[in-house]
Amino acid sequence: MRSDGGTDFFKVAVTADVLRAFRDVAPREAQEVPFRDALGRVLASTVVAGADIPPFDRAVMDGYAVRAADTFGCGESQPAYLTCAGTVEMGRPAPPGPKPGEALRISTGGMMPSAADAVVMWEYTREDGDVVEVSRPAAPGENVVRAGEDVRAGDTVLEAGRLLRPADVGLLSGLGRTVVEVVRRPRVAVVSTGDELVEPGEDPGPGMVRNVNQYSLGAWVEQCGAEPVLLGLVADDLEQIRARVGEGLERADMVIISGGSSAGTRDLTRRVVETCGEPGLLFHGLAVRPGKPTVVGSSGGRPIFGLPGHPVSAMVVFLLLVRPVINRMLGRGDDAGLRKVPARLGDNLPSQAGREDFYQVHLSQSDGGLVAHPVFRKSGLVISMVRGEGMVRVPFEREGLEEGERVDVEIYS
Amino acid sequence: MRSDGGTDFFKVAVTADVLRAFRDVAPREAQEVPFRDALGRVLASTVVAGADIPPFDRAVMDGYAVRAADTFGCGESQPAYLTCAGTVEMGRPAPPGPKPGEALRISTGGMMPSAADAVVMWEYTREDGDVVEVSRPAAPGENVVRAGEDVRAGDTVLEAGRLLRPADVGLLSGLGRTVVEVVRRPRVAVVSTGDELVEPGEDPGPGMVRNVNQYSLGAWVEQCGAEPVLLGLVADDLEQIRARVGEGLERADMVIISGGSSAGTRDLTRRVVETCGEPGLLFHGLAVRPGKPTVVGSSGGRPIFGLPGHPVSAMVVFLLLVRPVINRMLGRGDDAGLRKVPARLGDNLPSQAGREDFYQVHLSQSDGGLVAHPVFRKSGLVISMVRGEGMVRVPFEREGLEEGERVDVEIYS
Repeated sequence: MRSDGGTDFFKVAVTADVLRAFRDVAPREAQEVPFRDALGRVLASTVVAGADIPPFDRAVMDGYAVRAADTFGCGESQPAYLTCAGTVEMGRPAPPGPKPGEALRISTGGMMPSAADAVVMWEYTREDGDVVEVSRPAAPGENVVRAGEDVRAGDTVLEAGRLLRPADVGLLSGLGRTVVEVVRRPRVAVVSTGDELVEPGEDPGPGMVRNVNQYSLGAWVEQCGAEPVLLGLVADDLEQIRARVGEGLERADMVIISGGSSAGTRDLTRRVVETCGEPGLLFHGLAVRPGKPTVVGSSGGRPIFGLPGHPVSAMVVFLLLVRPVINRMLGRGDDAGLRKVPARLGDNLPSQAGREDFYQVHLSQSDGGLVAHPVFRKSGLVISMVRGEGMVRVPFEREGLEEGERVDVEIYS
Repeated sequence: MRSDGGTDFFKVAVTADVLRAFRDVAPREAQEVPFRDALGRVLASTVVAGADIPPFDRAVMDGYAVRAADTFGCGESQPAYLTCAGTVEMGRPAPPGPKPGEALRISTGGMMPSAADAVVMWEYTREDGDVVEVSRPAAPGENVVRAGEDVRAGDTVLEAGRLLRPADVGLLSGLGRTVVEVVRRPRVAVVSTGDELVEPGEDPGPGMVRNVNQYSLGAWVEQCGAEPVLLGLVADDLEQIRARVGEGLERADMVIISGGSSAGTRDLTRRVVETCGEPGLLFHGLAVRPGKPTVVGSSGGRPIFGLPGHPVSAMVVFLLLVRPVINRMLGRGDDAGLRKVPARLGDNLPSQAGREDFYQVHLSQSDGGLVAHPVFRKSGLVISMVRGEGMVRVPFEREGLEEGERVDVEIYS
């Protein structure tokens, strides 16, 4: 058996080696966006509340604002009788009062009058002329939210690095933060190489196929919250690939070369990465299946990933190496976007010690919980990543996993 | 205790009643989009492959295309000797051959010559002049993907109603489907009412607060894959609300009225829904906490939801009622986007039989798995939905749940 002359074995990496090599990757710069466009973006700086929410004591029930002491000891058979001294209008300053023995009509959200310390719910009252009959005592503070009880001015309410959710957009609105600082989306250039590839709109001639990786990887980039820069197809030619990768390094924060899958193309990718700037090539070969022919390099602080040509292999390596680096550029944790669900294996998964194996699986529900069924298809079939819902990792030290074992499925999402 | 004069108890609904009332809601019409813009959209029609993938038999390894029979019985000590008759160029039609006793160099992805039925991996060969020494036999079909083995012309590859993922975009590309039919995003109008509300860019005067729901609900609409139509603020005035809701019914597929939280405002919402078209009011009151003051109606086939004014209540009811209806308009299952994770309760959750209670929780990891900690805050606080990661449902028939119980947390995402 011949060894692969194109691979320096001392540079074969495990996933952790690659991520360690990019430990200095920092979040991109901040940019200001209207808070209405901030959903799904990552906060660049911590948000500190500039004012109290609510800005004043508010009723949280419809009823009467009272001095709680005026209701002590009352009950169904022995109501308290108060004088109705008016109404708190919504959106208006509260009137003065109430004086001892008085009550003011108030609605949910209304501003508490300064002398009131509780709201008696409407259900426990009866109004007759000017008289309000109260059949249940109110404790001080009852049915009232104090100024700043929700959010206090000076509170840190949202941390830098947070992916903004719908509730956060609502909070920004409540705080009057109409502009918010988010991390610029990292730009990820995608270059496809391979003499056998044509664009999806073209009819492939004999021996040719349509480009899949440019678009599945571009969509993954988008899914991770980054901005794909699709640089299209380039022939298997050193100078042409070098020029296109150079364009990517100028226009983007990171370059993915979606390699042809033949040894010749892999070698071209390696030579381009070796010569496109400092430090150049970092690793050639990854102890992952599928994913062995991966090339990793860097030029002037911009990571370069030469991914395998098989669509499934390219996706697996993207999720293992590229997504964590995108996350760092967004100021998020490496595993952001990685969602695991526990399941039992529906079949044996063969493997070898000394490498990580990844199997595409689909899930079914059984009485005992989820079952992960491997999508056993030949290497590189597009349909296996379409039918798959996630992947199962066979760790380094294991020579396969057995039917019925508990595993975590890493969901594609 | 007084009963609430504004509520007809015979119309108080449970969640299932509301969803049953909207059982006829159908997917919006199809629209064509470039496949590159299809990520996250929902397929309107099933995609059937128009051609085989791959379009021809392909090598999946680098090596030599051979007639398998020529390698039978060979081994390390007794190699087979074949004549190298040329090279299959990537992206080119395969040359004729190989004749018996011949081999052709081929790379991964190359087109198999018609007379070859297997590829011997390069690692098991040695080339010397014109002679190829083969040290391991190949079985017929080995290292070859047949034309149509990945996808066969006529195969249904993606079903209508599917949310398109990155791998699907790759498949569309591989099939040459440059344009794809997706369901138009449903438009959801959001109207906020309440004399106490100001826009987030304004300074709230005494008794006033900034509008939260318009933007948190708008963001939820977006998160569900629909298009928010933000119609802004309207005063607590029947005619003004009616006009704004009318605008929503014209411009959108559904209208959400994010009500003021006082009884007066709720009553206005109800009266608007009663009179804005047929059938008008369907339900007033929901056996859900928080969410009781919900109003549900319909006008000319367009659902109308009067949501509670408290931001948390509004979100809970949105997730219970509005999201499933949006999903139907997208042609998806009611529970699409609903993600549950199992956890143990970190505290008791009180409730009453006969209604569903929802508690905001945040999650922590313990040795025994996830623990759900209720975010106990007063009703309606914005911060509780920001701190919460999901919600726990206390079912109708239970009078609360106990610390340590197994629950499903419905994650906000």
